[in-house]
Amino acid sequence: MIDVVQLASLLIAAESVTPARGPVFDVLEAALVPIGFAVERLVHGEAPDGPVENLLATRGTSGPHLAFAGHVDVVPPGDGWSADAFAPQQRDGLLVGRGAVDMKGAVAAFIAAAARVPADAGRLTLIITGDEEGPATFGTVSLIERMRERGVLPELCVVGEPTSVAALGDMVKIGRRGSVNIWIDVPGRQGHVAYPQLADNPIPRLVAILAELDALVLDQGSDWFQPSNLEITDVTVGNPATNVIPARATARISIRFNDLQRGQDLAERIAAIVHRHAPEAIVTPRISGEAFLTAPGPLSALVSAAVLEVTGRTPELSTTGGTSDARFLRALCPVVEFGLLNATMHKADEAVAIADLEQLRDIYARIIQRAFSTPAA
Amino acid sequence: MIDVVQLASLLIAAESVTPARGPVFDVLEAALVPIGFAVERLVHGEAPDGPVENLLATRGTSGPHLAFAGHVDVVPPGDGWSADAFAPQQRDGLLVGRGAVDMKGAVAAFIAAAARVPADAGRLTLIITGDEEGPATFGTVSLIERMRERGVLPELCVVGEPTSVAALGDMVKIGRRGSVNIWIDVPGRQGHVAYPQLADNPIPRLVAILAELDALVLDQGSDWFQPSNLEITDVTVGNPATNVIPARATARISIRFNDLQRGQDLAERIAAIVHRHAPEAIVTPRISGEAFLTAPGPLSALVSAAVLEVTGRTPELSTTGGTSDARFLRALCPVVEFGLLNATMHKADEAVAIADLEQLRDIYARIIQRAFSTPAA
Repeated sequence: MIDVVQLASLLIAAESVTPARGPVFDVLEAALVPIGFAVERLVHGEAPDGPVENLLATRGTSGPHLAFAGHVDVVPPGDGWSADAFAPQQRDGLLVGRGAVDMKGAVAAFIAAAARVPADAGRLTLIITGDEEGPATFGTVSLIERMRERGVLPELCVVGEPTSVAALGDMVKIGRRGSVNIWIDVPGRQGHVAYPQLADNPIPRLVAILAELDALVLDQGSDWFQPSNLEITDVTVGNPATNVIPARATARISIRFNDLQRGQDLAERIAAIVHRHAPEAIVTPRISGEAFLTAPGPLSALVSAAVLEVTGRTPELSTTGGTSDARFLRALCPVVEFGLLNATMHKADEAVAIADLEQLRDIYARIIQRAFSTPAA
Repeated sequence: MIDVVQLASLLIAAESVTPARGPVFDVLEAALVPIGFAVERLVHGEAPDGPVENLLATRGTSGPHLAFAGHVDVVPPGDGWSADAFAPQQRDGLLVGRGAVDMKGAVAAFIAAAARVPADAGRLTLIITGDEEGPATFGTVSLIERMRERGVLPELCVVGEPTSVAALGDMVKIGRRGSVNIWIDVPGRQGHVAYPQLADNPIPRLVAILAELDALVLDQGSDWFQPSNLEITDVTVGNPATNVIPARATARISIRFNDLQRGQDLAERIAAIVHRHAPEAIVTPRISGEAFLTAPGPLSALVSAAVLEVTGRTPELSTTGGTSDARFLRALCPVVEFGLLNATMHKADEAVAIADLEQLRDIYARIIQRAFSTPAA
């Protein structure tokens, strides 16, 4: 038996601000090996986005193959903690510490759940990265490459991100919107405001571009997604001189888009609008992930049934929120996300109810049992 | 006799990056006292915009009263000089050094001109500040106060700023546009781009404001002025995080306006537009000066005649360009501006043709003589 609260506490105490390396993985390895997992610890990548430590743990050689994915890196503690963020504390039925819900608690719950299931009941793979909160260049992506090399190919995957909103089990994520950031750089010609005819102010062109982008209606949403949304997240000229017309004006937009859109198409559509106003402008898109959907089916039904059994709640199937590593894992097999309450994630005094932690362990155990007794979708 | 080139060289050698104090005024005093001027040196103001040294020189007790206004502070040399900016050099018929045209050359020319006119032929006042290139808080404004205290009230004033464009004498300035800078600060509510409904992005409101401001037609110009012009000179959000909707967006505009407008009216008009889009926005105007015009008349005719006599050119009467201390002096009496070529002002290797310097001395001498023999306007 593994005590989920104790294991979560050990993981929290192993300080691991992204990218995580070393001690926190020692804790994982020490927990996994005794319950029958073969553990492979990998260091991927180089500066500036690496090196990153990752861990692949496998157990079982036959039967249905379920994977659990998560991360043990955390965001920096920030200010406002009532105690040391990396000294886990139990108080008022809560376990407090950075990573309690996002997502060392869920990692501990899954390992404790695996400990309750016979090692030969089916195939279990743990995909644990040390870089989900950072650039994620050498995190889950590198683990997926390694899995392909080794032929570790799960049939179902559960990501343990905190998806619950008001009560444990109220929400399961069956997809995520895609995300693209686009930088817009409009050149002009510097000059003195008293002689505007000798200059070429780029700001009016940028303003016209942004006004048109702000008025865009990308779509009306789809069956499982809200409408795609464009936000202007930055505008920068940075001209300190009141009497100078600047040489350059830049902006950045962020589009969170649904399964009706593709990142590259959006980037091209934005570039066309920009270039109509400013042919010389430089448009630089960076696609963080495409939208994806694991359409409601056997996997979401399996997870929902396990949630209902333990909590009495039927989870809402949702595609809201930010991106997660599920955007990479979807390439392997059907993926859903289910985990703790997200209310305190990334905040001071991040905390999980100990009762939730124990229930999550039980839910994950039912998911494993159900996966092992149900043919994959 | 005063050698205009020698005096200009001495002034240039007395390094006086704004605000000027001390040695450069010693040079002025040493030149002015022997030719009959009573010199009052004044130190005005406190930090941060002071203290500033200023000089008031008066000669004559009766007859028409002409003033010459100028400054002996200079802008910093900056990079790119072929020799020391404060070691005046004569080469290829040029006198090179910081301040050669803006405007130690003109100050030297006026003093050399005054030396050629009998001390009792009329009243001459020199209004010389050490802070025209800086904030100008304690420069000409303080000198005007001092003149009022002493009852020194000229009837005509010539400002020696570099007004010539392609050849000495091609342009006299008879007015200047007004100038107002307006800061616009639009508040919003920060949030995550994945949850825009929980945030309030201020950028679209700022974009709508700037689009409307950019489309404004303030006027069509007036008899002696080009149309008033609005430039957006800065936009700043300064949000480094691609996934964050920012809490605040700011912009700055600069309006150069003609005699159909008043700074305060413009500020109120802009504020009304801003507040229609963003009632919470903070609008902060700073009026640098109102537009003014010395309508073509006796003073401009007198200066034009002197220019024509010496150079053979009939100057264009213009109101173009940036602000100058003429915006303050206009409160005293009719003001025009006439001086050297402005091509190299504020640049590396600032230089004046020695022939121009001598011609300017001659033009100023004719202006003094004509002023003393002509009743003021």
